[in-house]
Amino acid sequence: MRQSALTLAEQLAERFAQRIRDRLLVPGTRLPSVRQCAAQQGLSPSTVVAAYDLLLAQGLVEAQRNRGFFVRQRGGLAQQTGAPFNAATAGTAIGVRAGPPVNAGALIRGMFQPPGERAQPGMGAFPPEWMENSFLQAAVRKVTTTKALNDASLRYGEPLGDAHLRRVLTARLQGMGLPVEAGQIITTMGATQALDIVSRTLLKAGDCVMVEEPGWAVEFARLNAQGLRILPVPRTPSGPDLAVMARYCEAHAPKLFVSVSVLHNPTGYCLSPASAHRVLQLAQAHDFYVVEDDTYSHIAPAHATRMSVLDGLQRTIYVSGFSKILAPNWRVGYLAAPPDWVERLLDTKLLTTLTTPSLLERALALCIEQGQLRRHAERIRQRLDGARSRSVKLAQGAGCRFVAEPAGLFGWVDTGVDTEALSQRLLDEGYLIAPGALFHAVRAPSTLMRINFATTQEPVFWQAFSRLLPAVR
Amino acid sequence: MRQSALTLAEQLAERFAQRIRDRLLVPGTRLPSVRQCAAQQGLSPSTVVAAYDLLLAQGLVEAQRNRGFFVRQRGGLAQQTGAPFNAATAGTAIGVRAGPPVNAGALIRGMFQPPGERAQPGMGAFPPEWMENSFLQAAVRKVTTTKALNDASLRYGEPLGDAHLRRVLTARLQGMGLPVEAGQIITTMGATQALDIVSRTLLKAGDCVMVEEPGWAVEFARLNAQGLRILPVPRTPSGPDLAVMARYCEAHAPKLFVSVSVLHNPTGYCLSPASAHRVLQLAQAHDFYVVEDDTYSHIAPAHATRMSVLDGLQRTIYVSGFSKILAPNWRVGYLAAPPDWVERLLDTKLLTTLTTPSLLERALALCIEQGQLRRHAERIRQRLDGARSRSVKLAQGAGCRFVAEPAGLFGWVDTGVDTEALSQRLLDEGYLIAPGALFHAVRAPSTLMRINFATTQEPVFWQAFSRLLPAVR
Repeated sequence: MRQSALTLAEQLAERFAQRIRDRLLVPGTRLPSVRQCAAQQGLSPSTVVAAYDLLLAQGLVEAQRNRGFFVRQRGGLAQQTGAPFNAATAGTAIGVRAGPPVNAGALIRGMFQPPGERAQPGMGAFPPEWMENSFLQAAVRKVTTTKALNDASLRYGEPLGDAHLRRVLTARLQGMGLPVEAGQIITTMGATQALDIVSRTLLKAGDCVMVEEPGWAVEFARLNAQGLRILPVPRTPSGPDLAVMARYCEAHAPKLFVSVSVLHNPTGYCLSPASAHRVLQLAQAHDFYVVEDDTYSHIAPAHATRMSVLDGLQRTIYVSGFSKILAPNWRVGYLAAPPDWVERLLDTKLLTTLTTPSLLERALALCIEQGQLRRHAERIRQRLDGARSRSVKLAQGAGCRFVAEPAGLFGWVDTGVDTEALSQRLLDEGYLIAPGALFHAVRAPSTLMRINFATTQEPVFWQAFSRLLPAVR
Repeated sequence: MRQSALTLAEQLAERFAQRIRDRLLVPGTRLPSVRQCAAQQGLSPSTVVAAYDLLLAQGLVEAQRNRGFFVRQRGGLAQQTGAPFNAATAGTAIGVRAGPPVNAGALIRGMFQPPGERAQPGMGAFPPEWMENSFLQAAVRKVTTTKALNDASLRYGEPLGDAHLRRVLTARLQGMGLPVEAGQIITTMGATQALDIVSRTLLKAGDCVMVEEPGWAVEFARLNAQGLRILPVPRTPSGPDLAVMARYCEAHAPKLFVSVSVLHNPTGYCLSPASAHRVLQLAQAHDFYVVEDDTYSHIAPAHATRMSVLDGLQRTIYVSGFSKILAPNWRVGYLAAPPDWVERLLDTKLLTTLTTPSLLERALALCIEQGQLRRHAERIRQRLDGARSRSVKLAQGAGCRFVAEPAGLFGWVDTGVDTEALSQRLLDEGYLIAPGALFHAVRAPSTLMRINFATTQEPVFWQAFSRLLPAVR
């Protein structure tokens, strides 16, 4: 590093600048004091001062008298700081809250561009090497012969999505007990676009939507960007808190409930049949729809309960995809909807991306049809079981307490310290964690964090974790 | 047909039902009278009555006393019938109008699933056989070796899009005179998603947006679905009507202007340098942004004027893609934005589809880099020139008048008859045309239609056209 053409101050400034640009340091974050930073980096205090001056000059930080240097507010998600409480509705039993965690962007970006090559504890997916297989390439070869390639490329595909994939998915869903036909399935750019299509089609700005909390940061951020009023519903081990939902229904007439029934992110909870039944009763009584995000279906326990199955796709829209199990960057997801909603949902797909690439959909259909995906998922589940038991032991050994029974890909653990402060420290060591604050509709300090069992099964992360813990206590 | 297991009435009912489902017959359309239909189809009147009864029983049509049978209102875009005029703003020089043409869905669907195998006069793209080439497959092979495939599939791609493609696009745009760096480019699912990302990021429900009229139906429908107030700006041969824009700016403070500068759809007009300059002056004075949709850039005349180039991407966002020239169903498009907007636009991309498939982006980068796309586009342009001159002669021979100087892929012609009525007749012959009403922010009768020069160069369509013309006069 010292051989670089940049001065030490420039190098340090650039490291901070990069982190600010990537929003791993979010607006409002205080930079370490000059003394702290000098000690941490093994630099002289004057070098640190010079670096901070460079950041000031670039407009990335601001100095606050006697308080130090703070990351400045900039464009993007970071601007949408959560409105803490909506005064207009504060009189009701449960107030409407709005606003995503301010650094949802940081977590998302971290998921895609992790610092360094290391598999990260905060990652939302399996490490790429877990996904390696021999069948993907064979499937791609089959759909890229001259004729097949032209057929899948040179004309727009079917609006609903590739017919072969939808046929294969129909069989899969029927096998789960979902009474569905191919004409009710719409393929999308990952489950993400499916969820976006649903909320854009069913809701308009100002509408109320219930979302489980804790929940996936991107979901909060997207609904917020759409101008919706978010009603967070506490998620319990058996399902959403029904008493809270009932009060929301009385007070705010929400139009939609967004739920991860099986292996809920971040807790790993699975919905009980009784809860599913009661949510559907509530939906019927209060005339709201349920979108069931089954993103983790391929690693789900057998016989897990889905609301869509109980309901028979009357008031439910089922969403899933293949990014978590096979090919994240193929971006293949889908939704299955009540017949009456298919056309409107399809219109939203057409208006926003027109069609989706049939090449990738066809290759995926082959992988499913030939049983390769099923066997691959089985191997992943077995490997995950092993990783989870190692990771749980290490986490407990490091003093963490599991708030939820460990299951699926994620652990939801209490560290006993503020995990946002901890995340800044761990970042200095090259580790990206997912602090609890990110999983709430409104940012609040949290001692929880979500860990990825596939990437926390080695002692090395927990050693860094234990070493840094005292510094943030 | 008569050998089918279905009765004649069932077959006829099913033909109508399919057309209603595809929204080629839109709600409110009157079915032909029993007598007309019997004569057209060579069936007995009692068979037609039985067929209409079946449609009634399916809820697809309704009978109106003494008036006949009408297609019923159903879900989807068809429901968003255009509000004819906004009374609240009728006092201003130019009223704000809202609502897309009711059958934008029909045109879009027709583009993707044309009736039969025939290349359609109303198509929005080149026929697939025009796109055939030898280099696409070679490029796909290179990006699907074991290592390359895993690399492009098993992890999420870069949020901005594939780095190689963005580098290649940077060179292309710089060559056009656009001062852009790779970090200002975001890849998208076709130009469609780019336009959607821009309007979602810059505008919120209730905001005003200026759009050229006539214009692309999908654009009107999408902006309308987003809850925006559409201000249609007449498009003249040299550019948008600046006097109208100036009045809109005074009365409604629009935040965005959506424009197709080069080979405008449907007129084929190209923006003059003077108009470009004045639009940018207006944007500066009234603080609005311009999104420049350069979808037809690959068949554009050399030295065509782009506002983004004059402006240097300060108040302009440039949008383009490859669906019209190479691989419609790869869905690769992109935008280039002012540096200050990149993060916010990127957040919208992430919240709506996360990343885009790098596999297809990388293959496309190879095709561009190796000059294959350029040579392919040259061949297409030459072939189009030939088709256009044949098509123009045939159209004029059939009594059509070109409202705009023929250029690019589309002709904008006056038929002298109501083109929606004509479109229903032509559909009976298996031809899908694009009636003028579809290109307006508010549906109104029109004698214009858009023709695709690539698919109207044979006499057979014009013969059918001439034969049916008298019936709708």
